[in-house]
Amino acid sequence: MKNYYSKYNTEYPWLIKEEGWVKLLQGVRESQLALGNGFLGSRAVLEEIPYEATPGTYIAGVYDRIGSHVAELVNLPNPFNFKIGVDGERLGVITMDVVEHRRILNLRHGLLCRHTIYQDSKKKKYDYQSIRFVSMHDKNIGVMQIIFTPLDDGVEVSIETGIDTSVYNVRTVTEGRKRHFRIKEVGQFKNEGYLIVETFGKLHRAIFRSGFYYETRGKKTEAKDNIFELKLRKNQTVKFTKIFCVEAASEKEDLGSTKRSSEKKFRKAFNASFDCLLRRHIRAWEGLWNVAEVSIWGDPEVEKNFRFNIYHMLACGPKDNGASSIAARALTGEGYRGHIFWDTEIFLFPFYLYTLPDIARNMLMYRYRRLEAARARAKKNRFKGAMFPWESADSGEDETPGWAKDLDGKVIRIHTGKMEHHITANIAYAFYHYYNATQDEKFFRDYGYEILFETARFWASRVEYNKRKKKYEIKQVIGPDEFHVDVNNNAFTNMMAKWNLLTAYNMSKKLRKSNTAGYKKLVQKIGLSAREVAEWKNIAARISVNKRRGQIIEQFDGYFKKRKVKIADWDENFVPVVSEKLTPRDYGKTQLVKQADVIMLLYLLSDVFSLKTKRENYAYYVDRTIHKSSLSLPVYARMAIDVGDKNRGYRFFHTALRTDISNINNNTNEGIHAACMGGSWQVLINGFAGVKIEKGILSVNPKMPRIWRKIIFSLHWGGTLLRLEVKNNKIKIQLVSPGRKKVKIKVFGILHSLAGDKPFEFERKKPVKEREAYYL
Amino acid sequence: MKNYYSKYNTEYPWLIKEEGWVKLLQGVRESQLALGNGFLGSRAVLEEIPYEATPGTYIAGVYDRIGSHVAELVNLPNPFNFKIGVDGERLGVITMDVVEHRRILNLRHGLLCRHTIYQDSKKKKYDYQSIRFVSMHDKNIGVMQIIFTPLDDGVEVSIETGIDTSVYNVRTVTEGRKRHFRIKEVGQFKNEGYLIVETFGKLHRAIFRSGFYYETRGKKTEAKDNIFELKLRKNQTVKFTKIFCVEAASEKEDLGSTKRSSEKKFRKAFNASFDCLLRRHIRAWEGLWNVAEVSIWGDPEVEKNFRFNIYHMLACGPKDNGASSIAARALTGEGYRGHIFWDTEIFLFPFYLYTLPDIARNMLMYRYRRLEAARARAKKNRFKGAMFPWESADSGEDETPGWAKDLDGKVIRIHTGKMEHHITANIAYAFYHYYNATQDEKFFRDYGYEILFETARFWASRVEYNKRKKKYEIKQVIGPDEFHVDVNNNAFTNMMAKWNLLTAYNMSKKLRKSNTAGYKKLVQKIGLSAREVAEWKNIAARISVNKRRGQIIEQFDGYFKKRKVKIADWDENFVPVVSEKLTPRDYGKTQLVKQADVIMLLYLLSDVFSLKTKRENYAYYVDRTIHKSSLSLPVYARMAIDVGDKNRGYRFFHTALRTDISNINNNTNEGIHAACMGGSWQVLINGFAGVKIEKGILSVNPKMPRIWRKIIFSLHWGGTLLRLEVKNNKIKIQLVSPGRKKVKIKVFGILHSLAGDKPFEFERKKPVKEREAYYL
Repeated sequence: MKNYYSKYNTEYPWLIKEEGWVKLLQGVRESQLALGNGFLGSRAVLEEIPYEATPGTYIAGVYDRIGSHVAELVNLPNPFNFKIGVDGERLGVITMDVVEHRRILNLRHGLLCRHTIYQDSKKKKYDYQSIRFVSMHDKNIGVMQIIFTPLDDGVEVSIETGIDTSVYNVRTVTEGRKRHFRIKEVGQFKNEGYLIVETFGKLHRAIFRSGFYYETRGKKTEAKDNIFELKLRKNQTVKFTKIFCVEAASEKEDLGSTKRSSEKKFRKAFNASFDCLLRRHIRAWEGLWNVAEVSIWGDPEVEKNFRFNIYHMLACGPKDNGASSIAARALTGEGYRGHIFWDTEIFLFPFYLYTLPDIARNMLMYRYRRLEAARARAKKNRFKGAMFPWESADSGEDETPGWAKDLDGKVIRIHTGKMEHHITANIAYAFYHYYNATQDEKFFRDYGYEILFETARFWASRVEYNKRKKKYEIKQVIGPDEFHVDVNNNAFTNMMAKWNLLTAYNMSKKLRKSNTAGYKKLVQKIGLSAREVAEWKNIAARISVNKRRGQIIEQFDGYFKKRKVKIADWDENFVPVVSEKLTPRDYGKTQLVKQADVIMLLYLLSDVFSLKTKRENYAYYVDRTIHKSSLSLPVYARMAIDVGDKNRGYRFFHTALRTDISNINNNTNEGIHAACMGGSWQVLINGFAGVKIEKGILSVNPKMPRIWRKIIFSLHWGGTLLRLEVKNNKIKIQLVSPGRKKVKIKVFGILHSLAGDKPFEFERKKPVKEREAYYL
Repeated sequence: MKNYYSKYNTEYPWLIKEEGWVKLLQGVRESQLALGNGFLGSRAVLEEIPYEATPGTYIAGVYDRIGSHVAELVNLPNPFNFKIGVDGERLGVITMDVVEHRRILNLRHGLLCRHTIYQDSKKKKYDYQSIRFVSMHDKNIGVMQIIFTPLDDGVEVSIETGIDTSVYNVRTVTEGRKRHFRIKEVGQFKNEGYLIVETFGKLHRAIFRSGFYYETRGKKTEAKDNIFELKLRKNQTVKFTKIFCVEAASEKEDLGSTKRSSEKKFRKAFNASFDCLLRRHIRAWEGLWNVAEVSIWGDPEVEKNFRFNIYHMLACGPKDNGASSIAARALTGEGYRGHIFWDTEIFLFPFYLYTLPDIARNMLMYRYRRLEAARARAKKNRFKGAMFPWESADSGEDETPGWAKDLDGKVIRIHTGKMEHHITANIAYAFYHYYNATQDEKFFRDYGYEILFETARFWASRVEYNKRKKKYEIKQVIGPDEFHVDVNNNAFTNMMAKWNLLTAYNMSKKLRKSNTAGYKKLVQKIGLSAREVAEWKNIAARISVNKRRGQIIEQFDGYFKKRKVKIADWDENFVPVVSEKLTPRDYGKTQLVKQADVIMLLYLLSDVFSLKTKRENYAYYVDRTIHKSSLSLPVYARMAIDVGDKNRGYRFFHTALRTDISNINNNTNEGIHAACMGGSWQVLINGFAGVKIEKGILSVNPKMPRIWRKIIFSLHWGGTLLRLEVKNNKIKIQLVSPGRKKVKIKVFGILHSLAGDKPFEFERKKPVKEREAYYL
């Protein structure tokens, strides 16, 4: 049988393959091979929707709270639904024997292709091929084509391909399976079927339109109905093409006009040829890869897995100017209910900032647009300024559930929503990071300063003065390490608060100086007094952390007195295995750390701490951290590289990199771990390639693994796109679109000013010896 | 907590109880406690629709074929859907802890009541009570009431109670799970939600309307929406009342006018009070039980189980003048895809004939209305007359699937559709039976003679003349025993064909004599020649069966030569257990019989065969029959009673009686076994109570089990309702509505003519000694 879609899948280093049908991996594959374009996400459920499949169709920012504990990303009707019956048997991996089955996700072009050969109960075979995509060119459009051939006999075929409304948000222990929308309108309009659904809370509407046609023996037929029958002879091939349009309208938008615009969009796409729609989609993906591509010469396996991660980050980058941001599992599953955490600003943001700064700006806008809600939250908690929620959805209110399943499946109360306050500083950090990398003064004037000031204000009201110690303290918090609940003076939180206050202070001085009118306007708008600003500096100066032996930072007051648990066992990824005698509820009594916490601090404020401090803290905490969050390994990997723990650094990186492609945490079925992907990108770029910001200056000083020959990648810096080719001892840099300004960059420790579009080459003075480089 | 619905459940002998929540029994309970009114059937799924529940909402006669092997009863949207969330947790047996759970099906009044106490993850308790019914007074109306109270704390409650469209027809091996309808219209109209769905094949539409209101602290609120939230204080009770209307429209009916009529019906019901709707419903059920009730004094357990069976037969009796008939699993599940077999005419029909003759007439009309399809089928198979399909749905075409799961789960081809021809004679038999019991000349003139003649015609064309033997033979058939496929001269088929020919011949003579004009008209209509009629008698005289030792009837040509398998093991119900070495595919090579076949013949043509023949054949075949159909035991039970195998007779009866209440075949989850219920009724009435038709005369001669003191029941006979009180030696008979005609009846072997409404008492001349009576 001819392989119709093989022409789209010729570049091996860009293909993720599913070989054979394994029921147990169904949910994992649905996440891994998911499609998306930042607006629409679609899990890679097989078109026949097998029993126990978990279809997932999500629109960024469409949440609903009714009937569930907190707002959650709504699982919407699924347009990739195509059921074929042959003489009364259903084509499908459960209902028929699967002779052959393969799916290929083309990372470069965002295409999902499939080839399955079925055998029915009468031993007759059928060839089934499909291709589908969610258009990167036009966010509302999705396309699916199916090519079907009965191989052994003529057959009566029945087709059913409506937009499947029989979908649910996944089952949770206390809420069961639930649907978050109701059908508001259905109908047929010309050769198109349409469907309007509304979330239960009535905040969101989604409009689906779809139409399809089929071709056989050169004849094209537009189907009037999405359910019909046709007869095929042996070896007669039929090709079905389904095109759909999905549009969202919030409660504030006029449904009528959105209906009209979606009709227009649908018509335009439906009247275009499949090839044309595909071409545009591919072109859009090529545009993204032009800046986002990372080539790792010498390690095709790592390169492919790395691109898999980049693919997923490209597929979820929001383009809606702040209506949505990236959820913990992006748009590929319902883990964490589609909520947005600090993961987004700290782990994912840098990837976008350096490759697609427009998307990075949208992510910041998501927070800025919810500043009012953050102010309200601060007020409600009797604080000042803006207090961002630990888990955020559409409204900007805190959506942290009051309970959840613990690591061992037991349902427990969770306190993060009330106590995990560091996110407010993390958001300020991302804003400042953006400013630093882009020098986008306008954005900062419009949004950034306000965020910096309001978050500093929050911390100024959040701290408590300890007269005896003459220190400002932050009590009753949870740090990144969530094993230790309700602690005082968590080092990470304290230092991030201090950083927030200090940065706000410095930036306020800068603004007042450079743009006095703008400063006055803002100060007036938010009612900020000079006394308050002065106080920020004062408070910041009196926030500190406990240290032992001069260097080891105590994670929080009393941490050192907790019981030390000896780790005696590590798994194949160098991740500690804790004795089962200890239940997760006991962890808080010990020095066991869930994820990088002090190390996270050293990672984010890398400039502030000496290599010695990093080395000693790393050595201390690596023996206590059990990496029960996918955020932990990338941080440790990067720190291991910095402090020279080469072997472990590479292993940590490698495990983090494969979190989803190898389903390491055994929960990829709930969606990919977006933050870990962003974290892995940072390990490679900031760690191995050694790209760092040192006191505001871009610096490159690679420490690549021995077997890697070079890494090629692009970065946006200060409005210019740089193309870098990095070896341990040699670096090429080209300014892709040089502006008038010179670009300052430190290479191998020496500062250079680059201009023009000719490539610059740099060599290390004292070449790194091979044994110094990273190896396995 | 007050038990709000206990007042409806005071009569113990009428209550079927589910105590506690057992996940494994979920599907079984859904079938057992199902509600119905002959038009609408609803499985007793819990209102919260737990995970892996199998909601089932069926309208009699609504089938669809698209996407499945053959037409199947459509699982329609479920109006008994009520989801309650409390502070984000979902009320339900899976999502919460179940402190207490009980459901009661009130057989007398067709009510399903429930009382569950839940505990959430925070250890707070909630009291949940519900009542629901499908109105027997107005077939389109269903009502549900829910009373909810938070016991430990105030709570924010979210309600979701749309008409649930996320339903599927059950999964089959080769077809998967499938939906057979699409949503055609949805909307909100005043305080009502409505939904119109259409089957994929477009032959049927169903219109759902529903509205609800709630009452708390004496205040009634009409909900504008089926999704909303409200706040309750601790111990504050809220009562929700949901009323819905379901109407069907076939493709031929005008949807617009059905919409209007359904709106009217819904309004009327919605404006009536709950008590009023309930009262009317109860009154309708009382009316049915007035004739259908059977009291068994001395054995309350058997009495209750027997009433459970009658309940299910009352709940599915069709009232649509032949649009539908009763499926193998009635309207309680999707076993056998809702198809109609010979079960209906042979096993179920007598119950209705003697208690609700109008329903019996509807069942015959179902066949008459498909006479044209049966004629077409005969023609297609190159036969004459009418050939009824082995499995029938809406169109009257044969819907037997070409393959199915065997007893051991293996998928095999099935041939019954092509070869199981006896059904045509069985249908003729039911028509004649109706005539005999009702003397309804008009019905017979309009429909009955035509059926008798056309079926006789079929047999006249179906037989083959064997010149050597000078016999007519029927080759290549399957008898009731489906282990033996493609056999010649199956005794049951031969003799039923012979009976069909002879009865048609005799009735044609009778009609010609009594109503020459009518006869001529019919003969002309169907083009029947006098030669053909004469030939029926001639053929009938030359159809015979093989016998051995004078009495043992050979099931088919060559049966005696098959391998005898010794049965060495019986289960607790006296049912043979076959060695596992023998696979179901081997049974055909042996003398093992699936279900009563020769015994079925002796049962149906009881008049024709001597007691000696019955006794010897029973003794022979009972050792070979393994009862792999629920139709078998009732036939054997009745025969055992007739031939005096008392102990086994009672045991067979008892097992057959409990088929569904005890889930004996382990597939009650697919629906109740309607035919077995009808068969059990026949064992009790025709066997134990000894009511028989002997050469057209009603005769009573009981053979009751020793521990039964008496049986009280009613029967329609010749247009008169008789009330009988039967003991082994004493019988009371009263004509409930005596007409002018005297009723001839044989009691204890002596013929009497009864008139007037005074009770008659009869005593047996030679009392049966206690040891002669039945015992365990």
